[in-house]
Amino acid sequence: MDYQKIISEVYADIIGKENFGKVPDYIPELACIDENKFGINFTDLEHNSFGIGDFEEKFSIQSISKVFALSYVYEKLGEKLWSRVDVEPSGNAFNSLVQLEADHGIPRNPFINAGALVICDILLEICTDPKQELLQFIRDLTDDHQIFFNEKVAASEMQNSFRNAAMCNYMKSFGNIKSQPDAVIELYCHLCSIEMTCKQLSRSFLYLANEGKTPSTDEQILSLSKAKRINAILLTCGFYDESGEFSFLVGLPGKSGVGGGIVAIYPQHYCITVWSPKLNEKGNSYRGMKFLEEFTTQTGESIF
Amino acid sequence: MDYQKIISEVYADIIGKENFGKVPDYIPELACIDENKFGINFTDLEHNSFGIGDFEEKFSIQSISKVFALSYVYEKLGEKLWSRVDVEPSGNAFNSLVQLEADHGIPRNPFINAGALVICDILLEICTDPKQELLQFIRDLTDDHQIFFNEKVAASEMQNSFRNAAMCNYMKSFGNIKSQPDAVIELYCHLCSIEMTCKQLSRSFLYLANEGKTPSTDEQILSLSKAKRINAILLTCGFYDESGEFSFLVGLPGKSGVGGGIVAIYPQHYCITVWSPKLNEKGNSYRGMKFLEEFTTQTGESIF
Amino acid sequence: MDYQKIISEVYADIIGKENFGKVPDYIPELACIDENKFGINFTDLEHNSFGIGDFEEKFSIQSISKVFALSYVYEKLGEKLWSRVDVEPSGNAFNSLVQLEADHGIPRNPFINAGALVICDILLEICTDPKQELLQFIRDLTDDHQIFFNEKVAASEMQNSFRNAAMCNYMKSFGNIKSQPDAVIELYCHLCSIEMTCKQLSRSFLYLANEGKTPSTDEQILSLSKAKRINAILLTCGFYDESGEFSFLVGLPGKSGVGGGIVAIYPQHYCITVWSPKLNEKGNSYRGMKFLEEFTTQTGESIF
Amino acid sequence: MDYQKIISEVYADIIGKENFGKVPDYIPELACIDENKFGINFTDLEHNSFGIGDFEEKFSIQSISKVFALSYVYEKLGEKLWSRVDVEPSGNAFNSLVQLEADHGIPRNPFINAGALVICDILLEICTDPKQELLQFIRDLTDDHQIFFNEKVAASEMQNSFRNAAMCNYMKSFGNIKSQPDAVIELYCHLCSIEMTCKQLSRSFLYLANEGKTPSTDEQILSLSKAKRINAILLTCGFYDESGEFSFLVGLPGKSGVGGGIVAIYPQHYCITVWSPKLNEKGNSYRGMKFLEEFTTQTGESIF
Repeated sequence: MDYQKIISEVYADIIGKENFGKVPDYIPELACIDENKFGINFTDLEHNSFGIGDFEEKFSIQSISKVFALSYVYEKLGEKLWSRVDVEPSGNAFNSLVQLEADHGIPRNPFINAGALVICDILLEICTDPKQELLQFIRDLTDDHQIFFNEKVAASEMQNSFRNAAMCNYMKSFGNIKSQPDAVIELYCHLCSIEMTCKQLSRSFLYLANEGKTPSTDEQILSLSKAKRINAILLTCGFYDESGEFSFLVGLPGKSGVGGGIVAIYPQHYCITVWSPKLNEKGNSYRGMKFLEEFTTQTGESIF
Repeated sequence: MDYQKIISEVYADIIGKENFGKVPDYIPELACIDENKFGINFTDLEHNSFGIGDFEEKFSIQSISKVFALSYVYEKLGEKLWSRVDVEPSGNAFNSLVQLEADHGIPRNPFINAGALVICDILLEICTDPKQELLQFIRDLTDDHQIFFNEKVAASEMQNSFRNAAMCNYMKSFGNIKSQPDAVIELYCHLCSIEMTCKQLSRSFLYLANEGKTPSTDEQILSLSKAKRINAILLTCGFYDESGEFSFLVGLPGKSGVGGGIVAIYPQHYCITVWSPKLNEKGNSYRGMKFLEEFTTQTGESIF
Repeated sequence: MDYQKIISEVYADIIGKENFGKVPDYIPELACIDENKFGINFTDLEHNSFGIGDFEEKFSIQSISKVFALSYVYEKLGEKLWSRVDVEPSGNAFNSLVQLEADHGIPRNPFINAGALVICDILLEICTDPKQELLQFIRDLTDDHQIFFNEKVAASEMQNSFRNAAMCNYMKSFGNIKSQPDAVIELYCHLCSIEMTCKQLSRSFLYLANEGKTPSTDEQILSLSKAKRINAILLTCGFYDESGEFSFLVGLPGKSGVGGGIVAIYPQHYCITVWSPKLNEKGNSYRGMKFLEEFTTQTGESIF
Repeated sequence: MDYQKIISEVYADIIGKENFGKVPDYIPELACIDENKFGINFTDLEHNSFGIGDFEEKFSIQSISKVFALSYVYEKLGEKLWSRVDVEPSGNAFNSLVQLEADHGIPRNPFINAGALVICDILLEICTDPKQELLQFIRDLTDDHQIFFNEKVAASEMQNSFRNAAMCNYMKSFGNIKSQPDAVIELYCHLCSIEMTCKQLSRSFLYLANEGKTPSTDEQILSLSKAKRINAILLTCGFYDESGEFSFLVGLPGKSGVGGGIVAIYPQHYCITVWSPKLNEKGNSYRGMKFLEEFTTQTGESIF
């Protein structure tokens, strides 16, 4: 299939239409982004890569980093990880604290904020220098050392983390947070602040399309079973309260971030990354969703 | 792959272990079932079929019939169907009425009870004889006319339908139910009462593995896009509040019923049906879940 | 104290100000009321009575009738009544169905709709002709036989009772409704449709100001303890989700109805009734609340 | 009325019966209390005082101190206080965070934890030395300088304050907490740690029975209107999710604390305080509730 042609055509189609949604304003450092940035990158298992638009510009990957953190922790802890976080889709944000109460402090899945906070808490337990180790893990996956935290973004998020602090303290009241809430929040905000390009992102996620191995080194980052299971959680939980819609419209495992990035994985084949900062009402990139819906409609390729 | 061998081995393994869970007691007609019934049937797109155990015995398919009803209505209405029911996974049963309030009477998806009641309400609007038309649709899919409602089960369910009546009246207060609640409940209880064997079920679901076409007649029951989308909803919403777990452990679209049946679909390849009446805490067949988890572990085949 | 002077002055003050709020439109028969109707009636234990404005015009007492129904049932059943309905203030309407779930079908108090439906269900159990018996009870309290159901209003409410039907069916699923939901709803809608004047209402409620006895006949309608307890429930639960506000601003036990009526009781002394159809956001008469706040500010009399 | 005789008889009756409930174990410093402590003190507006049992032993007044804090803040801020906290009874603990979400960070009333945290936040804003000022306020009310914080109890509570920290951070995310959450929690835990005897407590609360004035000095602590309004909030909100029950059974404004204390106020007449450490399921002193129910049954005196 001529992916390059399809991508170019869909890109041209979408860039010609109105760009709806809005850039989130609760993180001042992110609010000043040029809202018409638009980049795509496609990388297959043979490292054939094709990009268009702003695909080599760095942006804040935000929640996409939760997938790296989960992979790192899952490989180290194995299935016992799931005693501290579940794998069920959540209802909407509104209910998240109710559900934490009903579920005795166990978050519904590792991609809602509460779940990612638990993953950060585990990183604090098992790592000597969690920030550095996680950054190194991502650099190795990408085969590129030019990946960093943005300290200004991290600091900005820490100053606006009262809801995360609420959840973290609430889970600690159930015993599901071990470290001090402040330390957990600090790590969490750093992970969210990582900056990558579409090109780096689509390459770094290839292990999830390749049965847990990085295609370049053939190193088994995650066991086959674990890689499949992370894809399964991505499909049911990767897009907040729009996960069902993404599964319905696009049909690929994926993850979005409020920085406007989306990564989608076609197992055995490729990863594709989109970046466009304006978000729809559910908090996912408006153009990112549109692009991927049209892209899989054109290719006819989905896991279903 | 030698599916017959794998199925036989996994079947033998599971039948040798303790059978946990319990048969639901709120429908008297179902409570008297022999709880050790256990049947499997596998059918591929070439109609190669293999069964083991009680695979030719009829059982109450219960919520599995919601997939047939959705397919029938979706093909007739097209995408405008989704103005009356969403495609997002629900939180647990506890929240269902809260969510209906928050979502102004629009159910989260067509497989929770509220969603299936809306589908039944649509059937009442668009069909002259909805019960007969739906039954005929299922018979055609199965190429077998020996499929019936169990009137005793339907009557038994109608006498225990106060929660469904509550939801139906609640949605009507928002204008999302058009017919009289009693008529909607009566149709709903009939659909739940349909009886089929594992063999019939695995054959009848082939259209979802075959891009919307029945393999025997090549008739397009649903468009390719619609078939994929139903698979997507099955993956995110097919197992009540255990949908994430089924996706995680089994990795195939599927649907369960409180009669103890489970259908799973491997797109492009086959359908497999399991029946074992004892249910786990989340309301899904205990042995059905175990069998399918072990089966996909052995085959290594999932959509992820 | 010169109540007549205070009432006249506060009445004049309020009628000179803008009349905010709106008449509810979900009951067509009520929506056509003249929204500037405004009447007050004061009656003390010696039957000194003073009225102003539209105090002799009948209006739909709606939820105020719940107090009569509760009194009638409480006297007959005694304290065992409270196994089927609690005496705690409810959170807002939004949560009512959640609370019914958490409380296993036991309504929070007899003045929310769910609680009044249980009271109606009990009336169906213990009365031969519940509608007639209840009407007679109210006529006896008022010493006036010219009190009737408005059948048009009752019919109108029955056609818009889907939420009440939802709650009734939901409670029946927990076993806390014994009769058929339709019969319960029919009785409930009739009780709501009773029409009385401010003058009749303030007289009929004197038993709650008079230790359970009707002042005219000295008949003990309710024991002293039961009368005090109904006043206590009125104070904590009589104004939907504005009960705390009414207790805070007015400081008297009372009950409102969506017909725009409010009854307030000053134990050992008097009853005062206000009618003005436009309701505030919480569903209580806008002018009724304003009048009573100003009235108790002027008299300095409250139970606190 | 011979209050002394009634108190002595009811005391004798209750001490002769089994003492149900349990001492809370989440605050280690409180868990080691002798659970059979039982004291009563009655003080009327002429300072006639009568005590029985352990009425001169200090105990941790816990949430009872919220009434002092509210009085102090209300007098200083006036009605604008209510823009930051409402006066409605709350549903149960389960819903508190949901309600904070629905109400945009405004707690339902000043006696639930969220509301008391807002009051503490205001104390931090308006006082130079809030701990010392509040303590002095209570000492002046009691005319007794031997009232102190228990620093061990305060420290113990601070180490178990994760739920309060969760609520505090959550409200801060809505802008309804101005100071740092840690500072708010520190003040809150100190207020809870105040120790007083039944005798001190019943005297200190006389201003609420005396139209806002301390009987000894005739000083107007609160305006008449404010004093009545605090009594109104005590009646609807003073006993957590058992406020309706206390109003129903006892019929007096009052406040309980998890240290086992209860204060009840009969406006224009007296205050009565009970202390017994074992709590019922709703968190109120088991014997305290029983005593007051029987006491008002014997006296026949309630506000209703």
